[in-house]
Amino acid sequence: MSKQPQQKGGTETAIKPTRSQDYAEWYQQVVRAADLAETSAVRGCMVIKPWGYALWERFQAELDAMFKATGHKNAYFPLFIPKSFLEKEAEHVEGFAKECAVVTHHRLVAGENGGLVPDPKAKLEEPLIVRPTSETIIGASFAQWVQSYRDLPLLINQWANVVRWEMRTRLFLRTAEFLWQEGHTAHATKEEAEEETRKMLEVYATFAADFMAMPVYKGPKTASERFPGAVETYSIEAMMQDRKALQAGTSHFLGQNFAKASGIRFQTKNETEEHAWTTSWGVSTRLVGGLVMTHADDDGLVIPPRLAPAHAVILPVLRGDDTKPAVMGFIEKLKKELAEVRYHGRPIEVEVDARDIRGGEKSWEWIKKGVPLRIEIGPRDVEQDSAMVSRRDRGPRDKAPMKRAELVANITSILDDMQKGLFDRALAFRKEHTRTIDSRAEFDDFFTPKSKNEDRAEIHGGFALAHWNGEGAVETELKDKLKVTIRNIPEDLPEAEAPGTCIFTGQPSKRRVLFAKAY
Amino acid sequence: MSKQPQQKGGTETAIKPTRSQDYAEWYQQVVRAADLAETSAVRGCMVIKPWGYALWERFQAELDAMFKATGHKNAYFPLFIPKSFLEKEAEHVEGFAKECAVVTHHRLVAGENGGLVPDPKAKLEEPLIVRPTSETIIGASFAQWVQSYRDLPLLINQWANVVRWEMRTRLFLRTAEFLWQEGHTAHATKEEAEEETRKMLEVYATFAADFMAMPVYKGPKTASERFPGAVETYSIEAMMQDRKALQAGTSHFLGQNFAKASGIRFQTKNETEEHAWTTSWGVSTRLVGGLVMTHADDDGLVIPPRLAPAHAVILPVLRGDDTKPAVMGFIEKLKKELAEVRYHGRPIEVEVDARDIRGGEKSWEWIKKGVPLRIEIGPRDVEQDSAMVSRRDRGPRDKAPMKRAELVANITSILDDMQKGLFDRALAFRKEHTRTIDSRAEFDDFFTPKSKNEDRAEIHGGFALAHWNGEGAVETELKDKLKVTIRNIPEDLPEAEAPGTCIFTGQPSKRRVLFAKAY
Repeated sequence: MSKQPQQKGGTETAIKPTRSQDYAEWYQQVVRAADLAETSAVRGCMVIKPWGYALWERFQAELDAMFKATGHKNAYFPLFIPKSFLEKEAEHVEGFAKECAVVTHHRLVAGENGGLVPDPKAKLEEPLIVRPTSETIIGASFAQWVQSYRDLPLLINQWANVVRWEMRTRLFLRTAEFLWQEGHTAHATKEEAEEETRKMLEVYATFAADFMAMPVYKGPKTASERFPGAVETYSIEAMMQDRKALQAGTSHFLGQNFAKASGIRFQTKNETEEHAWTTSWGVSTRLVGGLVMTHADDDGLVIPPRLAPAHAVILPVLRGDDTKPAVMGFIEKLKKELAEVRYHGRPIEVEVDARDIRGGEKSWEWIKKGVPLRIEIGPRDVEQDSAMVSRRDRGPRDKAPMKRAELVANITSILDDMQKGLFDRALAFRKEHTRTIDSRAEFDDFFTPKSKNEDRAEIHGGFALAHWNGEGAVETELKDKLKVTIRNIPEDLPEAEAPGTCIFTGQPSKRRVLFAKAY
Repeated sequence: MSKQPQQKGGTETAIKPTRSQDYAEWYQQVVRAADLAETSAVRGCMVIKPWGYALWERFQAELDAMFKATGHKNAYFPLFIPKSFLEKEAEHVEGFAKECAVVTHHRLVAGENGGLVPDPKAKLEEPLIVRPTSETIIGASFAQWVQSYRDLPLLINQWANVVRWEMRTRLFLRTAEFLWQEGHTAHATKEEAEEETRKMLEVYATFAADFMAMPVYKGPKTASERFPGAVETYSIEAMMQDRKALQAGTSHFLGQNFAKASGIRFQTKNETEEHAWTTSWGVSTRLVGGLVMTHADDDGLVIPPRLAPAHAVILPVLRGDDTKPAVMGFIEKLKKELAEVRYHGRPIEVEVDARDIRGGEKSWEWIKKGVPLRIEIGPRDVEQDSAMVSRRDRGPRDKAPMKRAELVANITSILDDMQKGLFDRALAFRKEHTRTIDSRAEFDDFFTPKSKNEDRAEIHGGFALAHWNGEGAVETELKDKLKVTIRNIPEDLPEAEAPGTCIFTGQPSKRRVLFAKAY
């Protein structure tokens, strides 16, 4: 076991390096210390460990309920996409054929040197691509399912794994294989498809705010950042603690592009034949990385209560075997009482960690795992019908006794208070590091690190709201010189909506857009 | 729309052909009529449609709860397996390298003729195999996770897609890609691993009986039918309505074979180092095919209530717009009342099908989809505070009026009665077609179709309990000549446990084993 911070005095942190020392490495260490995931023997693919997967299952459960509440049904489509399908939509193939896993054979045979080789006799006539996204293969099904306006809208979601070959990978944020959901819908009119695109963007923004406690800016991307083949791409963008943006979800209005490529046609009420209007939208295990980078601190992960796989862990404090039955009996009773309390529709879930290891070590493990509440119970607590309660959003040594009945009665309001506190803190952080910028010099200064160390050593910049005249050349220049991109054209932001002058070209600008460095 | 049976008189069936006319084709038609799944443009891969996927989600939810109740945690491992990993276990590679999807490139580029081709510059140094099963890749993680006896047992489950290249495919029963769960566990002792293997076999048998209403025989497979690399494979085997066996789940005791291949070693309490003992166990979307073939009839699918995505469908019977508000109001009220009733831990789920199509057509659609209860409500029912209720386990025209309050009060007992009835019927069917056979002549006769038509046209045979001396050569001969295999050595079956004489060799036999043709 690694040494624990409390042995070394009160100021040491459980995660080394800290955020300010080396943010990128801090992130990897938080993921490792929380036991969320690890790299695998397969290049670019991660192993999602039980605590990380339980967290993802919470994301799935809540998102799935939101999708079903908005009328969507789950289905499942093939993992493989015939090469010719990808070729159907010109922009799409340009975007996705570049880095993908190509299946060329369907058998291995013994090779000359004893090992196995792809069997030359089992070469596929047409290579298959492991899906990087499923518009084309789902489009082929939709073309069969949709005949008449009565078959529309068609509202489908798929939970699946996808593969995009990546050279530089980081756990959750960018991996060759990742897990996601992809919504795919078809509609009779342009307006309806646009409404769907916006509705699902709203679902994502709500999920980010209400469950992840992560405020986001939502709005359309610029043309250069659109999904390949889309007419309009909307995103939600969140600020991480290194002040970079994370694109946390996208919703695409695909116009009739994919309907034409896949032949999704329907007979209208007037008996004419038209192409359907389609959308697609997705979020992925990347959100887990976003959660880490929004809330984790220098002692490890902090999970917002509404997404926590366990709301609390109970840590028995045993001093000799004779007190054990009383303590464990008390714990069982408390656990049962808590299970009868419902927190946002789900019973309070409690882990009991009765492992025979040192109490301090155990407590620190759960701090690093980010469980919202730690509840210590020893013989004296049993006598007093109480427990020592620690909140993950407070200091690691900050604990307070609570009567058992009080804890049971108040646990949901404590959790709600934590959930709100995390959101407020993230919102304040974003506000602090979002700047309205009106000159190129200030813009460059904002996005240039001040120390002479490598970039990664210094947290700098943030979100800039600045005027831009809409020229793609400006985007290219900023990306090359400063690694800055336009994240989106943020909505519901009155201060960005007045016209002005583009700080890059001096030309008129209709409104401000959101600039940041990004993951 | 296809013509509906009720227009053609009382004896016609909704599915054509019927089971007795052409069982294989009947199966395909039931799957199609219930809108469960369809073939895709990708060879051997199916599309699981919303109703089929909702059914699979029910399987998942119940199995997942059973796995968690027995101490397992979910995790996720890479889709790809490096070729060298497969090569580590000699028998395993023999079993799985044969037909698999081989990824050889990570990029497509424009070819000479305009289309895309795998980029020769992006050829992988080592081919990757799309997982056919994950023992080897999960073993690599376990080798890292397990250091000491304190890390054991390690009890992991994964929900995933897997690929086994198949030439002849049938929806759900045999497809190139399928969805499944695979449990993988590591233990400190042989006894513990054997106990785990048996425990999970028991979980599968319980799930089959209590949820699928499908009785199974459980027991070890013979050596020739073991999972490649396993020391012992246990299976559950169910009888389909064509009297063939379906292997519905397997649980493998892997000894130390995979631990040695993957290097899963641990320090014992005595500070010696040993290889762990591992198990693996899985069930797949094949179970959906098993459910269809156990309970569906000549009018379509029949879903046991405990696995039904919806327990009931409410069909408004509207005669003119003026009665609509009263009928729909009544339905909403009933739906809400039913949602407050819990059936085996989950609220009663009701679909309301208010589509503006002919009532008969609508009703037949739900018969073919296998929803347990159909509830018709028209203006007269509203007046009488009642509904017309039809059970899917009775004739399609068999309906009875029930008072609303009576329906709400009795729905769980009606559903339980259906669940039990389906199990009892399946059990009686199996009993009727299971025979104790004591001569080779009778055995051959039992498994030989009597008509001169093709095999598929005649349902024949069944399960045979016969004595066998343990010789592999007998198995080979029976497989080649009669397409009959030993399904397993069934346990908890006193009539099979007495010693006797092998009907194939005349040699002594310790007990009877279970023979059948199989999927």
